[in-house]
Amino acid sequence: MAHINAHYNKLAAGYLFPEIARRTEIFLEKHPGTRVRKLGIGNTTEPLTPAVIKGLKAGVDKLASPETYTGYGDEQGNKLLRERLALYYTERGVSLSSEDFFISDGAKSDSGNIQSIFSSDSIAAFQDPAYPVYVDSNVIAGRSSGFNKDKEEYNNFVYMPCTKENNFIPEVPDQKVDLIYLCSPNNPTGAVATHDQLKSFVDYARKHKAVLIFDAAYAEYISDPALPKTIYEIDGAKECAIEINSLSKFAGFTGVRLGWSIVPGDLIIEGTTPGEVRKLWNRRQSTFFNGASNIVQEGALAVFSKEGLQESKNLVQYYMENAQTIREGVESVGMQAFGGINAPYIWLEIPSGLTSWEFFDKLLLETGVIGTPGSGFGPAGEGYFRLSAFGHHKDIKAAVESIKNNLRL
Amino acid sequence: MAHINAHYNKLAAGYLFPEIARRTEIFLEKHPGTRVRKLGIGNTTEPLTPAVIKGLKAGVDKLASPETYTGYGDEQGNKLLRERLALYYTERGVSLSSEDFFISDGAKSDSGNIQSIFSSDSIAAFQDPAYPVYVDSNVIAGRSSGFNKDKEEYNNFVYMPCTKENNFIPEVPDQKVDLIYLCSPNNPTGAVATHDQLKSFVDYARKHKAVLIFDAAYAEYISDPALPKTIYEIDGAKECAIEINSLSKFAGFTGVRLGWSIVPGDLIIEGTTPGEVRKLWNRRQSTFFNGASNIVQEGALAVFSKEGLQESKNLVQYYMENAQTIREGVESVGMQAFGGINAPYIWLEIPSGLTSWEFFDKLLLETGVIGTPGSGFGPAGEGYFRLSAFGHHKDIKAAVESIKNNLRL
Repeated sequence: MAHINAHYNKLAAGYLFPEIARRTEIFLEKHPGTRVRKLGIGNTTEPLTPAVIKGLKAGVDKLASPETYTGYGDEQGNKLLRERLALYYTERGVSLSSEDFFISDGAKSDSGNIQSIFSSDSIAAFQDPAYPVYVDSNVIAGRSSGFNKDKEEYNNFVYMPCTKENNFIPEVPDQKVDLIYLCSPNNPTGAVATHDQLKSFVDYARKHKAVLIFDAAYAEYISDPALPKTIYEIDGAKECAIEINSLSKFAGFTGVRLGWSIVPGDLIIEGTTPGEVRKLWNRRQSTFFNGASNIVQEGALAVFSKEGLQESKNLVQYYMENAQTIREGVESVGMQAFGGINAPYIWLEIPSGLTSWEFFDKLLLETGVIGTPGSGFGPAGEGYFRLSAFGHHKDIKAAVESIKNNLRL
Repeated sequence: MAHINAHYNKLAAGYLFPEIARRTEIFLEKHPGTRVRKLGIGNTTEPLTPAVIKGLKAGVDKLASPETYTGYGDEQGNKLLRERLALYYTERGVSLSSEDFFISDGAKSDSGNIQSIFSSDSIAAFQDPAYPVYVDSNVIAGRSSGFNKDKEEYNNFVYMPCTKENNFIPEVPDQKVDLIYLCSPNNPTGAVATHDQLKSFVDYARKHKAVLIFDAAYAEYISDPALPKTIYEIDGAKECAIEINSLSKFAGFTGVRLGWSIVPGDLIIEGTTPGEVRKLWNRRQSTFFNGASNIVQEGALAVFSKEGLQESKNLVQYYMENAQTIREGVESVGMQAFGGINAPYIWLEIPSGLTSWEFFDKLLLETGVIGTPGSGFGPAGEGYFRLSAFGHHKDIKAAVESIKNNLRL
């Protein structure tokens, strides 16, 4: 008799974004014809840029001829792409080998799967609030005995609260943990860790032989040159940190699907020699995955061409104008906003004591704007609300106008 | 202190195909300039067909304009594609809902991941020999206490030997098991299960509330109309079977990446009501995966157009001519061959008592032909050798000529 993996029963709620979609659907059934403006899920809206379109089409053309057709690709991804990525990091002063890179179908897959190469009794620490995949994947892997409804926390996990008081960047844990998930620029708070803050985590990880899992998916949204764009800018990070990144938000690849993980050969954990953890991730990936689409990998190479990089930077700039519009708009009606400077998310403090799901319903009802309740990202997200800067300028402006005109604070 | 997932240490060998690549590389270092002919990995070689190229390009074009650009897609995959797939099954007399379909990046991912929704104490049964991903993913999930070197088997697993005596289709297990992996047409043996044989497994599964995981990746290679192309042709299969399929071998998508899994709403296991297992797989996929590339999904829709289907059938015919060439060639030198009639794999009986890795080395040295040692697929594969029909006609002919002229039997 087959049984389900009972760890799934411990999950406190459905995955966040499907839940938002469900509530929106119910709202639209009750209020048909309402013009809904989606600032919830961080979904890109602007077309791929000309250089990328050209690269993708060249990728398709290659498959039309027997001379250039390719089937299964290199195990860790297109070698040219891995070399180009290594070079891109070199340009930031970081030395990595193309063998350290693993091309994937996106940061979500890597964020979810990376925990599987570590022992099931690992103690995991998370920023609170955080992207739900980190927590959910560890629950499903059995690292929590269950959800504590009073604390709104999963047992056995270490939460690192990100609050107004610490500018949404936590201190290192005051206990020993094995895996630490960090996301900077942060989803959902929009906060960016400084060099010194990241250094404290690298020092902690090296001292305790913990592993940092660093999600840099929003790195290209950093405009302040003093802020680190990769964990490997920090001395010693190659011994303790895995980085995950993606073209979703940099180049509009949310639907196209391409990401990469970096497991440096230098990384060591308890009982391993250099190269062993990287080899383990290779074994995981070559057993459960057959590579990102060869067409998409050609598109990714085009992103890192001279034209592609310039166009992608313009795309980031486009969304960051939205971030400014949103931030100024919500501040103009007296709300306190964080983020949105070096990140495409604005983190609103909810006025008047509403829960974040109550504010979700109120905002939708009064303004037609859909955002993401902070509590969906963890207990310390309660009292906050995420607005995403991904959208057409005119839609974002209309949403902000609707907030200004219709939200009753 | 982080530790690795120690289940990885139980794996008896590296993943099979990287191991073949490694041995080939060593061979070429020792014998530089040798013309190597790859009949090992089942990697497609013929270009994508015109209808598919057109569909993929239209998919790229959609992303070039704000009016048609799409980001994150539908949770279980492009709805049009899921509806088209459901219709394709209807045309085979099988009634499934589009909600039963989950579009993925390929059958390898689905084959590896599907076990994760079942409890870790599930007893899994495998055809022996079998595609290594089934066994490896269950080892990594902790369902075996380790590898027994004397028996060449993993502890706790149930092996269903596929031998000359049973025409490479096993009987149902004589003990209670929870998960049964079946692949028909079979990789590696090329055997195809009859309706009655599949019915015995469906009956077993319903009786014991076990789940069949049916890999139909080679279904389109069946030309005999009496042989089932999907498990759902068997009455009752919707209550007990999950099917996995892919465009890799049907439409040349090995590098393009698209597959699908089917978890019928009717499927029930111990303690669940209809729909629950499907919902569980949805939760797994929506947590760890963000969908197949939208470009690739447009290409998949084109495969199922009228022109696309005809062209794909021609592609299958092309490879099946290779299968005939290989089978006739090896038989002409006195070897016994199986498969290759309704499947793109020829399963050779190795003469003269060599192990299958010894035969690998001998074949490579004497003929330059690379195949896959049967033992790489499980202990009952020892004494056998897989040749793949994927290749250009001229290369396959040259390989077969080399076997005829140079292999010393």
